[in-house]
Amino acid sequence: MSCSVEIICVGNELLIGKTLNTNAQWLADQITRFGGKVTRITEIRDDVPEIASVVAEALKRKVDFIITSGGLGPTFDDKTLQGISRATGKRLKLNPEAFRLVRDRYREISLPKRLRLTKPRVKMATLPEGSSPIPNPVGTAPGVLVEYGSAKLISLPGVPKELKAIFERSVAEMIRRKSGDLVFYESSMIVRGIVESALSPLIDRVMQKNREVYVKSHPKGGEGRGGALIELHFSSTERSVGKARERVINAIIDMVRTLSKTR
Amino acid sequence: MSCSVEIICVGNELLIGKTLNTNAQWLADQITRFGGKVTRITEIRDDVPEIASVVAEALKRKVDFIITSGGLGPTFDDKTLQGISRATGKRLKLNPEAFRLVRDRYREISLPKRLRLTKPRVKMATLPEGSSPIPNPVGTAPGVLVEYGSAKLISLPGVPKELKAIFERSVAEMIRRKSGDLVFYESSMIVRGIVESALSPLIDRVMQKNREVYVKSHPKGGEGRGGALIELHFSSTERSVGKARERVINAIIDMVRTLSKTR
Repeated sequence: MSCSVEIICVGNELLIGKTLNTNAQWLADQITRFGGKVTRITEIRDDVPEIASVVAEALKRKVDFIITSGGLGPTFDDKTLQGISRATGKRLKLNPEAFRLVRDRYREISLPKRLRLTKPRVKMATLPEGSSPIPNPVGTAPGVLVEYGSAKLISLPGVPKELKAIFERSVAEMIRRKSGDLVFYESSMIVRGIVESALSPLIDRVMQKNREVYVKSHPKGGEGRGGALIELHFSSTERSVGKARERVINAIIDMVRTLSKTR
Repeated sequence: MSCSVEIICVGNELLIGKTLNTNAQWLADQITRFGGKVTRITEIRDDVPEIASVVAEALKRKVDFIITSGGLGPTFDDKTLQGISRATGKRLKLNPEAFRLVRDRYREISLPKRLRLTKPRVKMATLPEGSSPIPNPVGTAPGVLVEYGSAKLISLPGVPKELKAIFERSVAEMIRRKSGDLVFYESSMIVRGIVESALSPLIDRVMQKNREVYVKSHPKGGEGRGGALIELHFSSTERSVGKARERVINAIIDMVRTLSKTR
């Protein structure tokens, strides 16, 4: 089994370089650990046609999950669900379950004045038809699950604390189940005194002998005077941590042997 | 005049969540400052068909610049130029100017043994036909400029130090010229004691009065017990810093007035 995932991050602040996209990295790391494979990450503005077109493109690529972050809040520029509605043809309407979640949340935090479910607050409970709200244990806007064909579209808020809480509580398990309990294992070694261009054929040789392991070199500052550091990153996705670790360790041993032969 | 830019970041390390994409944020910030508008950021794996298809999609959207980061080095998994070659139909061949740049660089850093332009090193000088290398003042792999119709495709290395050096030296000026000297100005204010859902109609009102200013709210931790902080971010792109700043300041004054009236 396998589990492919696309991540779509919505927010002008990403495209003007104001905000570092830590959500995408956190999600990619988590999804990888739960055996999923992130195939694409896209960052776009708070713009309905743009959101709709990116979601429609991802649906065409037939991934198992599309996870969006951002644009779920109460303000006028929170447009993710409008975009998803347009891409899937599922009309936005008040979702009674989501309405209950939002109302209860506002009761809990006991607003200074009397409870008023104003238009912007009701907006957070207005979801594409047929979707299910995902409870938000630390904020007001619930996450949203929309099923479309065989794809699951999951929308999470952009506030990192809320995104993480909803993912850990409700999404991680969906990824794990779909990936058939595959696990990811990774390890790195640092080499010094060899330039990256000389490493290339050695990596190639090691990968040919260890076909289930992916090896990638990360120069830490370019090819210097023979003294540059290069990180070699080894990773493998297997049915058990033990198996994945064994494969990675074997590849590292091969690399050490290959390196010692060439110097 | 305007200048639209898409950023494409290539690298498995981004999609497994190993690396935080600081390159995309740095580029987006710089491009915005030089008057450009980043319309999309995409992160993809080191995979030729995937790179080719993302580049081809960006070309169809008729942006002025496509800037890629990563995948220019000497190793087998540096595949960005192969992807661009496939998307543009421009065949890869040895570029004499790039070859000179790479050779001179290796002379400069005087490799321990005799200078050898091995296959992986020659790879860094193998560019799509008709493209120009962009000198890399701090590393071996030159940047690459490919012109395709009215679009400029610029490929930068993924090592942040090298990406920044090439951008600052050669790319910033191209963006500035294309954007017709537009400049971006931004400022923020922090409000406390009002929940985001209550702010929404006020922001709407301020933006209607200040049509050249974009206002966005960033809750700093969800809607708490009336004590949550919310950042209001104001930005404007104009022909002069003075003009942009004036517009932003006027909008902030309007916001302060609006807030004081409603409390």
